[in-house]
Amino acid sequence: MVSRVESSGAMLLRGRNGSARPDKWLSQRYQTIRRMTERLAAPLSPEDCLVQSMPEASPVKWHLAHTSWFFETFVLQPHAPGYKVFHPSFSYLFNSYYNAVGDRVPRPRRGLMSRPGLDEVHAYRSSVDQAMGAYLDAKGDGLPQAVADVIELGINHEQQHQELILTDIKHALAQNPLYPAYRDDLATSANGVEVQAMEWLRVLGRLSWIGHGVPGFAFDNEGPRHQVYLDDFQIGSRLVTCGEFLEFINQGGYDRPELWLSDGWNQSQSQGWKAPLYWEQIEDAWWLRTMTGFRPIDEAEPVCHVSFYEADAFARWSNARLPTEAEWELAVAEQPLEGNFLDTGCLHPRADGPCDGLRQGFGDVWEWTRSPYTPYPGSQPISGALGEYNAKFMCNQMVLRGGSCATPASHIRATYRNFFSPETRWQFAGLRLAKDS
Amino acid sequence: MVSRVESSGAMLLRGRNGSARPDKWLSQRYQTIRRMTERLAAPLSPEDCLVQSMPEASPVKWHLAHTSWFFETFVLQPHAPGYKVFHPSFSYLFNSYYNAVGDRVPRPRRGLMSRPGLDEVHAYRSSVDQAMGAYLDAKGDGLPQAVADVIELGINHEQQHQELILTDIKHALAQNPLYPAYRDDLATSANGVEVQAMEWLRVLGRLSWIGHGVPGFAFDNEGPRHQVYLDDFQIGSRLVTCGEFLEFINQGGYDRPELWLSDGWNQSQSQGWKAPLYWEQIEDAWWLRTMTGFRPIDEAEPVCHVSFYEADAFARWSNARLPTEAEWELAVAEQPLEGNFLDTGCLHPRADGPCDGLRQGFGDVWEWTRSPYTPYPGSQPISGALGEYNAKFMCNQMVLRGGSCATPASHIRATYRNFFSPETRWQFAGLRLAKDS
Amino acid sequence: MVSRVESSGAMLLRGRNGSARPDKWLSQRYQTIRRMTERLAAPLSPEDCLVQSMPEASPVKWHLAHTSWFFETFVLQPHAPGYKVFHPSFSYLFNSYYNAVGDRVPRPRRGLMSRPGLDEVHAYRSSVDQAMGAYLDAKGDGLPQAVADVIELGINHEQQHQELILTDIKHALAQNPLYPAYRDDLATSANGVEVQAMEWLRVLGRLSWIGHGVPGFAFDNEGPRHQVYLDDFQIGSRLVTCGEFLEFINQGGYDRPELWLSDGWNQSQSQGWKAPLYWEQIEDAWWLRTMTGFRPIDEAEPVCHVSFYEADAFARWSNARLPTEAEWELAVAEQPLEGNFLDTGCLHPRADGPCDGLRQGFGDVWEWTRSPYTPYPGSQPISGALGEYNAKFMCNQMVLRGGSCATPASHIRATYRNFFSPETRWQFAGLRLAKDS
Amino acid sequence: MVSRVESSGAMLLRGRNGSARPDKWLSQRYQTIRRMTERLAAPLSPEDCLVQSMPEASPVKWHLAHTSWFFETFVLQPHAPGYKVFHPSFSYLFNSYYNAVGDRVPRPRRGLMSRPGLDEVHAYRSSVDQAMGAYLDAKGDGLPQAVADVIELGINHEQQHQELILTDIKHALAQNPLYPAYRDDLATSANGVEVQAMEWLRVLGRLSWIGHGVPGFAFDNEGPRHQVYLDDFQIGSRLVTCGEFLEFINQGGYDRPELWLSDGWNQSQSQGWKAPLYWEQIEDAWWLRTMTGFRPIDEAEPVCHVSFYEADAFARWSNARLPTEAEWELAVAEQPLEGNFLDTGCLHPRADGPCDGLRQGFGDVWEWTRSPYTPYPGSQPISGALGEYNAKFMCNQMVLRGGSCATPASHIRATYRNFFSPETRWQFAGLRLAKDS
Repeated sequence: MVSRVESSGAMLLRGRNGSARPDKWLSQRYQTIRRMTERLAAPLSPEDCLVQSMPEASPVKWHLAHTSWFFETFVLQPHAPGYKVFHPSFSYLFNSYYNAVGDRVPRPRRGLMSRPGLDEVHAYRSSVDQAMGAYLDAKGDGLPQAVADVIELGINHEQQHQELILTDIKHALAQNPLYPAYRDDLATSANGVEVQAMEWLRVLGRLSWIGHGVPGFAFDNEGPRHQVYLDDFQIGSRLVTCGEFLEFINQGGYDRPELWLSDGWNQSQSQGWKAPLYWEQIEDAWWLRTMTGFRPIDEAEPVCHVSFYEADAFARWSNARLPTEAEWELAVAEQPLEGNFLDTGCLHPRADGPCDGLRQGFGDVWEWTRSPYTPYPGSQPISGALGEYNAKFMCNQMVLRGGSCATPASHIRATYRNFFSPETRWQFAGLRLAKDS
Repeated sequence: MVSRVESSGAMLLRGRNGSARPDKWLSQRYQTIRRMTERLAAPLSPEDCLVQSMPEASPVKWHLAHTSWFFETFVLQPHAPGYKVFHPSFSYLFNSYYNAVGDRVPRPRRGLMSRPGLDEVHAYRSSVDQAMGAYLDAKGDGLPQAVADVIELGINHEQQHQELILTDIKHALAQNPLYPAYRDDLATSANGVEVQAMEWLRVLGRLSWIGHGVPGFAFDNEGPRHQVYLDDFQIGSRLVTCGEFLEFINQGGYDRPELWLSDGWNQSQSQGWKAPLYWEQIEDAWWLRTMTGFRPIDEAEPVCHVSFYEADAFARWSNARLPTEAEWELAVAEQPLEGNFLDTGCLHPRADGPCDGLRQGFGDVWEWTRSPYTPYPGSQPISGALGEYNAKFMCNQMVLRGGSCATPASHIRATYRNFFSPETRWQFAGLRLAKDS
Repeated sequence: MVSRVESSGAMLLRGRNGSARPDKWLSQRYQTIRRMTERLAAPLSPEDCLVQSMPEASPVKWHLAHTSWFFETFVLQPHAPGYKVFHPSFSYLFNSYYNAVGDRVPRPRRGLMSRPGLDEVHAYRSSVDQAMGAYLDAKGDGLPQAVADVIELGINHEQQHQELILTDIKHALAQNPLYPAYRDDLATSANGVEVQAMEWLRVLGRLSWIGHGVPGFAFDNEGPRHQVYLDDFQIGSRLVTCGEFLEFINQGGYDRPELWLSDGWNQSQSQGWKAPLYWEQIEDAWWLRTMTGFRPIDEAEPVCHVSFYEADAFARWSNARLPTEAEWELAVAEQPLEGNFLDTGCLHPRADGPCDGLRQGFGDVWEWTRSPYTPYPGSQPISGALGEYNAKFMCNQMVLRGGSCATPASHIRATYRNFFSPETRWQFAGLRLAKDS
Repeated sequence: MVSRVESSGAMLLRGRNGSARPDKWLSQRYQTIRRMTERLAAPLSPEDCLVQSMPEASPVKWHLAHTSWFFETFVLQPHAPGYKVFHPSFSYLFNSYYNAVGDRVPRPRRGLMSRPGLDEVHAYRSSVDQAMGAYLDAKGDGLPQAVADVIELGINHEQQHQELILTDIKHALAQNPLYPAYRDDLATSANGVEVQAMEWLRVLGRLSWIGHGVPGFAFDNEGPRHQVYLDDFQIGSRLVTCGEFLEFINQGGYDRPELWLSDGWNQSQSQGWKAPLYWEQIEDAWWLRTMTGFRPIDEAEPVCHVSFYEADAFARWSNARLPTEAEWELAVAEQPLEGNFLDTGCLHPRADGPCDGLRQGFGDVWEWTRSPYTPYPGSQPISGALGEYNAKFMCNQMVLRGGSCATPASHIRATYRNFFSPETRWQFAGLRLAKDS
């Protein structure tokens, strides 16, 4: 179990709040995060790094380059005197969606870019890192706060792409009939614990504050901190397990339209969904593709790789519902920021053992909420290109909370709002139940 | 201006609350609504009534039949002793989306059903009406409350289809290069008033109650009445006008991605949107298809037939935003339920003259809110087939409020929640601005 | 059995070759054909006449108008002094594919045109007929040959649309769950005969002449008459029957890729073909939608409504092949021009009884050949808009020969080349086998 | 200019006809062809070899593996005693379209297979080559003729994939905004010659023999040799040049529907064609992507990368037509089998200088004919899986003749029939004009 207090995230807070030189802290954190990205790509061949298995996913090589492009475009070009771009076409190749920055390769065509090769992309990374190092050294503690903020945003942006590297390569390798593993040497997710019955934890409704309101980095979509009124509710003590989801399958959950949202039913029927993504039925047993290869499901593990529609249908079948994001945030408010994150190195959700109170609030799987992704009251997007970061996606998306086994521990917060469209299945997403009191 | 107090809606309240025999009231109301539906179809030829101009729309004939199917399926078959269905295939032909009731003609194929002919559908209506009349007479004041509730739901359901008849036929006729009008003899929407500058009305935030909580009919999605916390906000005194929207167009509103939600920008680009639906530029002037034919736009009129995406982009361009549905409900709480509804007979939004306070809250155009359509806290869908009425659409839809010039006056309430997907343009939908205080 | 010698087609030849006044003959023939078109539409309601069941088909009303548009555009407007068009928009509405004539309603949207109504289209027809009559009267025997040729083309064009009216309305009504019939009072296709074993007729190969080369009307694609060299071949004495095709189905014909062309296999799999169009399996029996309604298949009847792909696969399964169009033309060269055409009034293929030699060469079903539709050596398209009639479709189409039960008897010839894309199934098309000697 | 007499193709004929041991000849030829394939892939990175730029193209790595799979499946597995497959899944991964051999990775997903990596595919090639060598050595001159025939087919099959490797990688690299070249060191295609006026060569029509009828390898679609009757015709002395095609563009050729087949016009409009594939207009000049990079067009070069539709429209604009395949074969009958093939090493068509008679009949560009791809009279497909080689594609394809600058010299013959669907543009295809006499 990795506690966020012990992780580099803590440095962030110390750096920003404490007495040490913040510029040194930022520089060190930059290096740490950049190296981590490369470690994630290390087990992969140049060919693996090129595959784009669907328009929603990106090649690993693209992630490696795009995260560098971010620093080049938003830090080095505007702020580092005399900086020369590494390659004049990379702005076109590795822009993601920032309309304000100019044209870009259409997303579904990223997998066609065999050039620049992986080597050249690594050279690009090095070059950007060197220039960033030189820039930060030169500025020292004279680094303007506005630039420091952009760098911190870039670091957090890169962490988001770390998770995407893992989800995208999992999906890419899953297309391969050879059942390749991402790595063979990962920590096992099996921990031998016996799953405990879920308990309903009662939370008293009240006028509550949610959203980010303390010092330290947060994305613009997490604020401003504001009041919401909540009625009493109950929330599940742990995540829904594979065993419970299997029961839903066995009782015809995928064949009963009355359990589904209308859009979800249409999606499920047109895609032929019969189980979560990566599940495969072989004779009477259910198997699973994981980052370490193909193996039988473990009923004690949290169910993962379900869409919002499946999570919602499961909840209805359970005579329950998903929590709202405000309920979720209130419920975990007192929880320590620890869990099965990327840093545990098993890259798979794990069963949880006996314990009092709310469990698995952070890590393992992102938890679908019933809340559409909308702006908080009083929020204002950042102006300029970085204003495109979050706000423009606030439509047709659902909020997920809590981070997953592919999220860096130092990246997550109780106020963190992840979001995906409701049919999304390739993220490490599962669910926790809630109901009215 | 039609006041709801003077309309049949008032009868509904009197019926349910007052001393007169409620069964008589219900029977009379049933007849009134059914006749209105037929009046709306009367100007149309059998061929007009068959056209389905897109999968989202339905032929008028289908609306005529489906609303009858509702009473046959949910009242006559289960409750009227000895009732024989008019035609054994009509359940298949005229079911809309109720999975619980069985199979149905796929929605995009409704326009292929030349049989039954319009005459036979009118015969179907008569037959159902006769059976309903006989049933209500036979029951008298012994009508079970549960059945009365279903009938009242059917009446309100039919009123919803009255509006759809108008929006769908408007769209169907608009596909025709001959520019046919729905009717030539409608009341003019031009009222000669000069549009007044919009004022910002300030509303004090507080913990407020919203949702339906008084006697009388409401849809299940309007309750339960519950508390929400709102910050202070400001809301526009009137609807956004065509003239204001034209300014948005002229200043490049449709070409500036930074004004748009990401999904909205993609939609707008792929569809080639350059103006609201039904606008057409001829040389330098903008013309408009209306229910009475083709004519130049009137800048004083409320803008209509915009999608949520366009409304949202316009608001951003205005340095404002759309109201949430709770803000809207709070803002109109004290307004009289009157406005330019279907009952005024002009079937087009109208300019508003000088007046203090909030104007055009009801009627003219549905107002897009920034609120996704979600269940209210504590809500429970009705069980059985009628439970499919509202709840299963609570995803990827935005709430609209206030009714339009095609909404029956007796159908609307301050708590009424309409909903459509954000790209929808063929409904009579416009917008009102809001902003933080 | 209708002999072409007794039909109006004979008049055509007499008119052109004989001593009577050809202008009178043309005028009379014009009237006869126009009335026939209206007779075909007579059993249909205005709603039936509007349905367009797929982009490849057209509404009956469109056929009624388009055939009139042909005479208005190519005869009246250029040649009749002072002619005023019936309606200025009809050129746009009822142009089919003539790019040279201007824009047109996109084909898949023809079914949306509820206006002009069927009544107005009939008025359009009358008006054109009146103007044509007046024009022909005024010209008398001074009618320029070039105009007479266009009128004769228009008459033949209208006959093609007569067949399309029948195939398109059959398809439209077949979408309807009520199983409506086109007419209830058609001549029965059942003739009680017992189907005879097919015999292989041997034809000696030689350098032969094919194509149109005698006086009388023919389409430009039928000439010039030219030599082709053919090896010896054998051809089936009669059409393939439903019983034989059922055997193909029962022996897994639709599930064996080795029997199919690659494109055919992909089409068949993606469309889920399991039998000819309009066949439906109910328990163990096969039923069929016909112009008179739904009934069991008759094994003795020629199989109909198969695509080229199915015909080709059936032939391969039979250790045979389809004939080339030259082989077909050589084989029927000595046959009388008689058969089960539109004029017999049963609108369905019929079983054939015992008889020597080649049977069913004309009528019943169009016969798929293995010949792609290509220009004959030395052919030159007509210049101007009418040059778009045939030549521009000479790609990705296969030739069919012999006419069907929906073809007017006076319309067909041994040299007549019909053509459709190989996946087409809604035409009355079947097959006859051939093989090498 | 490479003469086929000097190339390895000559060995084929000597081997089969001469006195030397044919088994040695076959073994040597096998090695030669296999090495050539690897030489073609040598300039490419592993990432380049993975890209699949459209469903019709395949990754180079797939070509490398699939050609080995052919020998493994059709030679080693059935005939080499004790042969063990290299990898049990490769049959699934690298089968192309042989339904008889079993399932396969869907074609559009070939580009997702990052595993096996390029190294492993090269190991696969080596392993198959070793086993083939051992098998051929062991058999010596006891090699059964049936097996020798399959090996020879496999060699020719591999040569076809050599051309596809070049066309597919050209297309893949052309998607890249960096304009990468396949190689920088290719022989220049510029030869400084001045293009000569095209002359019309007259060919006397007669009853002629076409198709393969001499000893030596040919594909099954080239026979049997048979008679066709041809009228007199004229044929262009050389290929159509870029300069001539530019004139077609400048005179509005892409905007005049009357020049196009109907399918061609629709395709051209929907794809926005304005010039041949790989042409790009920069200000007033036309540039071209070639295997050596981006450069201005050379008006003297043969036009290349046009579809059949464009070739056909150009011919119509020229008051000419394309030749039939029989005309083409008759016209080149006396020509030596030499030209600008793969073996010249410039991988681009070249301008031709002054010379009498028909020029450029072989090499430079495949020449579109007006002949749909159909079976020759009397042809019988090979039975078994190899019977799927050619016959099942005989629908919706047009024949091309003569080979291109990417065709191995030893692979082509006067009777060789290449075929592609009429919209195909990524092959090295151009045209020669013909007309009636």
